[in-house]
Amino acid sequence: MIAYSEADADSLPVRLADQSICIGPAQAKFSYRNQQAIIGAALAFKVEAIHPGYGFLAENSEFAETCEKEGLIFVGPPGHVIRQMGDKIEAKKIARKAGVPNVPGSIGSISDAAEALAVADEVGFPLLIKAAAGGGGRGMRVVQRRETLERDLSEIMSEAEVAFGDAAVYIERYLTDIRHIEIQVISDGNRTLHLGERDCSAQRRNQKLIEEAPSPVLDQTLRDALAEAAIALCNAVQYKNAGTVEFVFDNSERKFYFIEMNTRIQVEHPVSEMVTGIDLIKMQLEIASGMPIRLRQEDVRISGHAIECRINAENPERDFAPSPGKVTRYHPPGGFGVRMETHIETGYVIPPFYDSMVGKLVCWGRDRDEAIARMRRALDEVVIEGVTTTAGFHKMVLSHPKFQSSNFNTAFVGELMERSCEVVER
Amino acid sequence: MIAYSEADADSLPVRLADQSICIGPAQAKFSYRNQQAIIGAALAFKVEAIHPGYGFLAENSEFAETCEKEGLIFVGPPGHVIRQMGDKIEAKKIARKAGVPNVPGSIGSISDAAEALAVADEVGFPLLIKAAAGGGGRGMRVVQRRETLERDLSEIMSEAEVAFGDAAVYIERYLTDIRHIEIQVISDGNRTLHLGERDCSAQRRNQKLIEEAPSPVLDQTLRDALAEAAIALCNAVQYKNAGTVEFVFDNSERKFYFIEMNTRIQVEHPVSEMVTGIDLIKMQLEIASGMPIRLRQEDVRISGHAIECRINAENPERDFAPSPGKVTRYHPPGGFGVRMETHIETGYVIPPFYDSMVGKLVCWGRDRDEAIARMRRALDEVVIEGVTTTAGFHKMVLSHPKFQSSNFNTAFVGELMERSCEVVER
Repeated sequence: MIAYSEADADSLPVRLADQSICIGPAQAKFSYRNQQAIIGAALAFKVEAIHPGYGFLAENSEFAETCEKEGLIFVGPPGHVIRQMGDKIEAKKIARKAGVPNVPGSIGSISDAAEALAVADEVGFPLLIKAAAGGGGRGMRVVQRRETLERDLSEIMSEAEVAFGDAAVYIERYLTDIRHIEIQVISDGNRTLHLGERDCSAQRRNQKLIEEAPSPVLDQTLRDALAEAAIALCNAVQYKNAGTVEFVFDNSERKFYFIEMNTRIQVEHPVSEMVTGIDLIKMQLEIASGMPIRLRQEDVRISGHAIECRINAENPERDFAPSPGKVTRYHPPGGFGVRMETHIETGYVIPPFYDSMVGKLVCWGRDRDEAIARMRRALDEVVIEGVTTTAGFHKMVLSHPKFQSSNFNTAFVGELMERSCEVVER
Repeated sequence: MIAYSEADADSLPVRLADQSICIGPAQAKFSYRNQQAIIGAALAFKVEAIHPGYGFLAENSEFAETCEKEGLIFVGPPGHVIRQMGDKIEAKKIARKAGVPNVPGSIGSISDAAEALAVADEVGFPLLIKAAAGGGGRGMRVVQRRETLERDLSEIMSEAEVAFGDAAVYIERYLTDIRHIEIQVISDGNRTLHLGERDCSAQRRNQKLIEEAPSPVLDQTLRDALAEAAIALCNAVQYKNAGTVEFVFDNSERKFYFIEMNTRIQVEHPVSEMVTGIDLIKMQLEIASGMPIRLRQEDVRISGHAIECRINAENPERDFAPSPGKVTRYHPPGGFGVRMETHIETGYVIPPFYDSMVGKLVCWGRDRDEAIARMRRALDEVVIEGVTTTAGFHKMVLSHPKFQSSNFNTAFVGELMERSCEVVER
């Protein structure tokens, strides 16, 4: 049973589903974000559970609670847990209480200049002032020197008031040489397992592009500490179902800090599946249906290395502008250790309404070098004609010595795009 | 660089190859079996090596030797090893010498009735008389009683003389309750590894349909004994590159007997790749290019369970008659643990000239039950429209309690086809 918008009426998921129902027009707010329509359809078709995927309502506490109220199983954590973790300041407080380190800073909002100066002296310069209601790079300012702090604070508070109707701001250490590392967790409410980490440091404007597991920069001590922190956080909120605890890792200090928890399955979950042999969606459904986790932590073994490239219908040469349209020819790459997840096919028209991701190419290797070599081969093999995709861009990144030697941070891809003429070609 | 026949000019492998050359018309004897054309093309394009795939010339000792003579690397064992193993009687003699058990019988050819009677008394009735030059079920007779042996012998010898120009026959025990189990081996000429066994008991008229690893009927003692036998045989002929040592396993006596060795990579090799994490084609190429095997036997670990279904463009309701034609829509199944290997795509016209296999669907699970469940789901998901395929037939087999409990032998699929109306549907 699948719920779809008018724009997706001819899509493959709809054709593959045993039953399907149209819940509204193309615009997501009238369909995929339309809670009433979705719940109504679920009740009409007497479904038992709703899997929200990883977009739209997947982290919407209200939706999860409405499901619970209507007697529908929401495949994910309880609504109140989604709400707790969705409030970034609340989440940081829970982390602190659980002994999980936050990025040094104020955590709660700053009330005046005196408090700001006191916090600043603790975290040092440069630092970040962030609007509590901001996000995705908006409502954020880097402060380089103590002298400008007071002025910067009052300016960003006014801006936040205007932009978000909320002047609350907080202060954080400004970390520049960082990697993004996250821990996959899964819990049945009693037993909580981690499936190791994923390294998602190849980002562009805070969007993950390439994810891999295990992280090439961690040693076993740090790896264990990260996992332990993630489990502690889950225990603190009695987490249930799949989730991801996200950290920044400071390369120079080799320290990690909690940033947030994603209370849903993530785009990059196949990377963890490939190295553990555990089907996360299957486990989500088992837990949602009341089955306990039978695996023990020692049964979760990390084997080899996996990399995922998110293939988007975008034009890297035009600042990654979306490239919707008709796919005139599609063929997935094949062979051992290659997994292509997609909803496209020859003749499919990519609608302009939603995310531009059209496929996830995941490759496994006995080690990182083999995974990279296999991915480069698979990127050569995938055929997507009619629209422009980021497949070639991924080839460029994977051919770069810095990527190959793991000697990069979250700024790498951005820098690469600026100097793409210097890039070493394969 | 790929060599292709006129029938395959528009095929995906040709389009994906960096270079390609047409070596003749559709009929294989003028193209894919045309040694001169292939060697000539290889020399003209200055290629270093030829990978023969798993059909046509892959087990042709003359072709391998011609490659060697022309300074081309043949990706496979040396020509003389292919020849030794290609001669079934010679292979059995080598096996016996290496301590590997053959099916009880005469091994060499029978010269007269007296010898036949002596052998028969040793192996017991029923027994098989087989023409040395026969194969694939031709030139074979089951003898039920000692009384008819002499007459049967003279008749089958006359028939063999007429049919194959060679009256040589041999005698074997007639085994009825058997499974087909084979060991994957790989050797660089010095170090020989095995990658465990594959169980290929789901056959129809001696054609493998479903293969799995590990075998659900072996215990560790038998598993080790089979692997040891396979390695002993390889050592006896100084085997090099990938190969498969095939055995029959007598269910009731729980004994195995060597039947033959395939001196090439096999259709079902992905099953072993999925449970070992080892890319066999990559290893073939590494060995062919002179690299030693760095893995040790203890590095080869079997993890989980894998199943392969050969998807043929055939109509099971018309006695599996080939169903060539245009694929009007194709979509591969996806998700964790699912691997689809194919050359078809939407719009592809399956030519009537070659084998009817259009895809191999391979599923991995943490155990056999999970692999079966995943395969059934993937078979539901695969879309191949325009031609009739065996996907539905596979679903029927995988839904059968006998398959699910592994309580079957090589006669199972044939019996299932006869009583397909009784089949338990999913």
